Amino acid sequence: MPLDQRIEDSLARALSLVAAPEAPPRLASALPYAIFPGGARIRPMILLSVARACGDDRPLVSDAAAAALELIHCASLAHDDLPAFDNADLRRGKASLHRAYGEPLAVLAGDSLIVLAFQTLSAVGMQAPDRVMQLITTLATRTGAAQGICAGQAWESEPQVDLRAYHRAKTGALFIAATQMGAIAAGHEAEPWEDLGTLIGEAFQVADDLKDALSPTDLAGKPMGQDAALDRPSAVRSMGIEGAQKHLKDILSGAIASIPQCPGEADLAKLVLGTARRIMDIPTAAARG
Amino acid sequence: MPLDQRIEDSLARALSLVAAPEAPPRLASALPYAIFPGGARIRPMILLSVARACGDDRPLVSDAAAAALELIHCASLAHDDLPAFDNADLRRGKASLHRAYGEPLAVLAGDSLIVLAFQTLSAVGMQAPDRVMQLITTLATRTGAAQGICAGQAWESEPQVDLRAYHRAKTGALFIAATQMGAIAAGHEAEPWEDLGTLIGEAFQVADDLKDALSPTDLAGKPMGQDAALDRPSAVRSMGIEGAQKHLKDILSGAIASIPQCPGEADLAKLVLGTARRIMDIPTAAARG
Repeated sequence: MPLDQRIEDSLARALSLVAAPEAPPRLASALPYAIFPGGARIRPMILLSVARACGDDRPLVSDAAAAALELIHCASLAHDDLPAFDNADLRRGKASLHRAYGEPLAVLAGDSLIVLAFQTLSAVGMQAPDRVMQLITTLATRTGAAQGICAGQAWESEPQVDLRAYHRAKTGALFIAATQMGAIAAGHEAEPWEDLGTLIGEAFQVADDLKDALSPTDLAGKPMGQDAALDRPSAVRSMGIEGAQKHLKDILSGAIASIPQCPGEADLAKLVLGTARRIMDIPTAAARG
Repeated sequence: MPLDQRIEDSLARALSLVAAPEAPPRLASALPYAIFPGGARIRPMILLSVARACGDDRPLVSDAAAAALELIHCASLAHDDLPAFDNADLRRGKASLHRAYGEPLAVLAGDSLIVLAFQTLSAVGMQAPDRVMQLITTLATRTGAAQGICAGQAWESEPQVDLRAYHRAKTGALFIAATQMGAIAAGHEAEPWEDLGTLIGEAFQVADDLKDALSPTDLAGKPMGQDAALDRPSAVRSMGIEGAQKHLKDILSGAIASIPQCPGEADLAKLVLGTARRIMDIPTAAARG
């Protein structure tokens, strides 16, 4: 089955874990609204690609890991779009969750998606308890308050920003989770896969900064030039456009070079290049988020 | 070691999982602010009491379960106090999290506490993988969008409220988690413990409704008469004060009768009565939350 189909199927299975007649109807409809239709599903795609490169001998575990990771990403979009943060009206080409369902349900849907991510992993716990426990630890670390996306977003509320820690947590964390969880799901060591995730995250961040500065119109609906408008740190603001473009190429070369030895090493290098081409394009509704 | 000390120690151990030099400082200080000093720690106290009644043969697992449950409770307080929900200025006798740290960090601290709850459980995964996986599933179910506290809070955003589902999820869910997780942590079946949790939750809800209606002053800082002011469902509003008081006594008798056979059955009955006395008192800063 193609990887993108595995991701959509696994997300649908995850949602079925909270399908219950006693669930409050509006919250129950806010969850699929936050998940479908997706963006490019880049993080779970990387996760499954790494799992495949490592043999993918427990596909149900890999699928659950991919869904869990994307659920955390969807939760972060729901919360980051709130009025207290980006106050975004649009997301993935439609009204943002809080515009469609109101702020209370946007907070609660985000919370519920975080919970569902861990529930999705524990639901396959008996397939490979050691791996699943390690997946839960890794996902929690890359989501939470020290090195995770919560830390990343929180840097925007600090009077003094540690730029390296900010980017590494805000954008890098879920890419590190993607490569490491892919390896763990297939029974490989996580540690050698951290560099690849870090570098893909850096590339994604620089590409996003470039898109923010360059896009003539924003087809995904996010107002352009947000970084400058909100006085947020950005590679373009510190290096200029050409400097940022050169930096992006260097990062991608480093990413390819960092791929650990594994059966599917060559295929994975191709995927990194393909993903890079996608994230370097002018954004479309489908390629963003 | 006394149970209350075990809970505080375990919460401190949980926090140490996100102590990192690269963590954003304000978020890092918002987490202990949301956790310490605690309220009565009723939920983890029930959890450890049930674990003890069942033999408590893996105390590190029970401790982690107790901390995880209290972290979820603290997260729910942080988010429920937000302007989009109760817009509370005070919590546990001091400024609510969003008043002290601002709304963005209150959202992110709540998110981080949810994540930390699951991380706290996975950190003891190797002690007893089967039990810990079941603890994660149970905690997720009682936190999430169908039957958990997220569902409970979401009922307040529904045009039509299913009162039974509302109370069972909003207040009952974490008490069911408390009794079931205590049993699971000690290697017992979860299912027979659901009724006890449900009934303690119902008692707590009715006591809270009574306190909301009766308290001459609210020492915990939550404005009194909120249920009527916010047009929220309440036992006092549907049964009157005397009716609600009689109902509370019936529920407590049922709770005692529901305790499954276990080595510490008698001690547990005493705990339920003791807890009931505490929650039926006029609230103090320490006894609330």
